[in-house]
Amino acid sequence: MHAEQIAETYPVVTMDTDARQAAELLASQRLPGIIVVDKEQRPYSVLPASQVVRCLVPSYVQDDPSLARVIDESLADRVADKLTNVTVRQMLPDEPTELPVVNYDDTVLEVAAIMARLRCPLVAVVKDKEIIGAITASRLLQLAIPHS
Amino acid sequence: MHAEQIAETYPVVTMDTDARQAAELLASQRLPGIIVVDKEQRPYSVLPASQVVRCLVPSYVQDDPSLARVIDESLADRVADKLTNVTVRQMLPDEPTELPVVNYDDTVLEVAAIMARLRCPLVAVVKDKEIIGAITASRLLQLAIPHS
Repeated sequence: MHAEQIAETYPVVTMDTDARQAAELLASQRLPGIIVVDKEQRPYSVLPASQVVRCLVPSYVQDDPSLARVIDESLADRVADKLTNVTVRQMLPDEPTELPVVNYDDTVLEVAAIMARLRCPLVAVVKDKEIIGAITASRLLQLAIPHS
Repeated sequence: MHAEQIAETYPVVTMDTDARQAAELLASQRLPGIIVVDKEQRPYSVLPASQVVRCLVPSYVQDDPSLARVIDESLADRVADKLTNVTVRQMLPDEPTELPVVNYDDTVLEVAAIMARLRCPLVAVVKDKEIIGAITASRLLQLAIPHS
């Protein structure tokens, strides 16, 4: 069995995707992170949901978390302010998370070996350099334990 | 709004849970990781799905991933061998992942501040030291963007 056969569709955004749209995808599909591709649909990075949360936390609270208890402000109050006219590019961390890439014809064991070595929960599957889907660690476990 | 109101049930295992049972939970619920609690139901760590995958990758392949291409073995072939008579304790990494903990009466902004600072996708919510649920980063985004 090869990567192509077990890859699943996974939402992707580009560096120029609107920040709010990316946040909505993460929220509505309850994802821990979303794949970022470049203009040629080549996998570039992962935007973790926690990084978007980070964008919504006021900087004075990030500097002093004890302030969070005493100020009366919700995350929702920040969305319009913080995600308007902002793109995914601006939300990515300074050192973007590396997204491991496997080839469509890699075997399941090759995919597992890469995941094991890099301790990552997600790999992108590419064919002719373009992303065709993704494989999560839990998907691999589902294959390993078929009746679960 | 407080942590208690937004916490969701999240599967937990103990250090003594059977490895196969933990793997089945991860696979069937398609989780990136599962919460490990101690005997008093206090949050202890997270067992990442990628760590369970790691347990299934033969050590000679971990040492030399290029071997994965040439050997004819599936992950499923390894399950019986590797997960029988093994507990969660033995699958945890040498340096277990820290699981951030918040109190049931922490505000949403406090939870977000902790998540932002530690860049973690998941926090455990405790009341009287026992776990009552968990909050993911995507759950926080769902609250921030209510109509998504």
